Amino acid sequence: MTAAPRGFADAEFAARVVRAQAVMKTRGLSALLLTTEPEIRYFTGFLTRFWESPTRVWFLVIPLIGDPVAVIPSIGAHLMGQTWLRDIRTWQAPDYHDDGIGLLVDALREVCGADGLIGVPDQMETHVRMPLSGFRLLEQHLGAERLVTDGALVRQLRMVKSDAEIAKIEMACCVANRAFARVSEIARVGDPLADVFRGFQRLCLEEGADFVPYVAGAAGQGGYGDVISPAGDEPVEAGDVLMLDTGLVWDGYYCDFDRNFSLGAPSDAVIDAHKRLITATHVGFEAAKVGATMADLFHAMNAVVDPHGAGSAGGRLGHGLGMQLTEWPSIIAQDYTVLEAGMVLTLEPCVAVGAGKIMVHEENIVITPQGPRFLSEFQSAMLEVI
Amino acid sequence: MTAAPRGFADAEFAARVVRAQAVMKTRGLSALLLTTEPEIRYFTGFLTRFWESPTRVWFLVIPLIGDPVAVIPSIGAHLMGQTWLRDIRTWQAPDYHDDGIGLLVDALREVCGADGLIGVPDQMETHVRMPLSGFRLLEQHLGAERLVTDGALVRQLRMVKSDAEIAKIEMACCVANRAFARVSEIARVGDPLADVFRGFQRLCLEEGADFVPYVAGAAGQGGYGDVISPAGDEPVEAGDVLMLDTGLVWDGYYCDFDRNFSLGAPSDAVIDAHKRLITATHVGFEAAKVGATMADLFHAMNAVVDPHGAGSAGGRLGHGLGMQLTEWPSIIAQDYTVLEAGMVLTLEPCVAVGAGKIMVHEENIVITPQGPRFLSEFQSAMLEVI
Repeated sequence: MTAAPRGFADAEFAARVVRAQAVMKTRGLSALLLTTEPEIRYFTGFLTRFWESPTRVWFLVIPLIGDPVAVIPSIGAHLMGQTWLRDIRTWQAPDYHDDGIGLLVDALREVCGADGLIGVPDQMETHVRMPLSGFRLLEQHLGAERLVTDGALVRQLRMVKSDAEIAKIEMACCVANRAFARVSEIARVGDPLADVFRGFQRLCLEEGADFVPYVAGAAGQGGYGDVISPAGDEPVEAGDVLMLDTGLVWDGYYCDFDRNFSLGAPSDAVIDAHKRLITATHVGFEAAKVGATMADLFHAMNAVVDPHGAGSAGGRLGHGLGMQLTEWPSIIAQDYTVLEAGMVLTLEPCVAVGAGKIMVHEENIVITPQGPRFLSEFQSAMLEVI
Repeated sequence: MTAAPRGFADAEFAARVVRAQAVMKTRGLSALLLTTEPEIRYFTGFLTRFWESPTRVWFLVIPLIGDPVAVIPSIGAHLMGQTWLRDIRTWQAPDYHDDGIGLLVDALREVCGADGLIGVPDQMETHVRMPLSGFRLLEQHLGAERLVTDGALVRQLRMVKSDAEIAKIEMACCVANRAFARVSEIARVGDPLADVFRGFQRLCLEEGADFVPYVAGAAGQGGYGDVISPAGDEPVEAGDVLMLDTGLVWDGYYCDFDRNFSLGAPSDAVIDAHKRLITATHVGFEAAKVGATMADLFHAMNAVVDPHGAGSAGGRLGHGLGMQLTEWPSIIAQDYTVLEAGMVLTLEPCVAVGAGKIMVHEENIVITPQGPRFLSEFQSAMLEVI
């Protein structure tokens, strides 16, 4: 595919703010207060790996009317100054006497007056990224009753991606497709699993990843015990099923999918498990039409991976994807989110393969008015043998 | 150096818990409630990159007496089961009706009774990693007045590293030393800066990094504008100063240091700036003796980088290092933390080089009873020319 352009037009950020403000109005909010990386980046374009450092807090205030106000450490002024934001207020952090709270309270009072309500993202998949003592100080200054739920409005906005966002996710998927196609170069019988993980990350970078925040995987005879353990120095062996899963990033957007490989001839049970995973993915894909619910997808896929209702190993069978490795919504029976064009999802069925062993497959799709479309390269039922 | 062993002896985790409990007793705490990756890993050894997913919440309860209780999503049961913990309670997350709060409240009531105080890390450099709505629910169930500050006790414990922890940080430093020694392989005039970043991450992996969560850097004529911007597709040019900074990880522990390179002959101003950076690092190193304060280090280093008191660009001149890229304490004038043997620090002076341009140098050291010791390979005043 042709490389997507980096960044976004300023107009896209402005439009996101306008959409947020429209919802804020219906909910009686005078401002939004954002503190996490994806929430701040969504409205500003502020993209940096510096969030890896927990020392500094960052605030974005979105008023009901007008442009956002960034209240940030001075170390970020140069980079934030390159975004579309014009109102950037800084202090030299860390400051042990007042680490930005004074500045933030002033900004909030300016846009909310003495009694306006301030929406804070407070639902699942987010948190308040500042010390609890700082948040309690904010409650004291402003009145705790004024810091209210945003009613998941930021989550709702982020759930439906723009074409520019989808193009970035697709770029990440293409990079991962190419890296997965080269796994036989870095996974040979006798290689320590930790070296396989390292080699795979190297392939992702060579194929164009900006960075590789997430690699998981496992290797084992006839399946694996879980999909979140780190790699150790134990070698991969003939007959192992090797699974590699990556959340690599291109221009701030993730892909998130995996591939299974058999080192040498797979057992019948493994062949069958992989077939069921591909069938479940296909069934999920077919169900992923505008108007369907996540619960619909769950039941369609679960009928394949867990026909006897034994309870599937991982719980959910996929999720949203975008600026974060996993996003709202979830493919679980409780999720009644209705699919809309522009949503990007992973389909991630999991099957049990004998006692204590599982296999997981994952693909990425986008919902369009014409139906779903694969962003990752949908695998055939035939398990790849290395 | 010889490879450090992976993991820790169970006894080390048990000793950490005992040390925490001794402080809890003096502060009248019946339990600690931990929610972030480093805090939970510090007491359990639970090491996974799965924290990259924001969907699931994880809880660890440390009672005043007895072993910790993990209250975690079932997807983590297999991995947590391989740590020293025996009391592991799980639920299938995400659960939209009760995402672990019920289980957590039960566990806290069990160890705290009806009125015991629960310490929560609430100071700088940490946050409560759960949805605010969940935390407020917890306050309702338990009584908000019972969720009190931990008085930074977890931060205090983590600040002084064990020999096993220091060995892991040193392993990470050695990997980065070897990667930096090969930078001329991946940085040539005309290469897009984004490719240089990718190439450097590849070198880190080839030299043994488990993963590379943080790479920053910059390139510019006579210095650079900041140290947190992402790399773009603009090529590095003859006469540029190229800076690369990495926080790579080995077995869950970071290094964090940088190197400057000149592409072709450097200007006199750049040569002079680099000399001052090395002098400031040396002065900081000499001052880093047991009993000195962080403020002492700041003033010693700042006299070199900012002799006329113009205000240095980044604010702080170094920080703690360990399970996170940046940790307590900070080398700033306000920080009176007294150095103890076992602390690991970065020395990170920053100098202005003409209008709007800076240069930054960084090394990693450990404090020992005999004085400081470099974990990274201390650079000479001579700037490396590529």
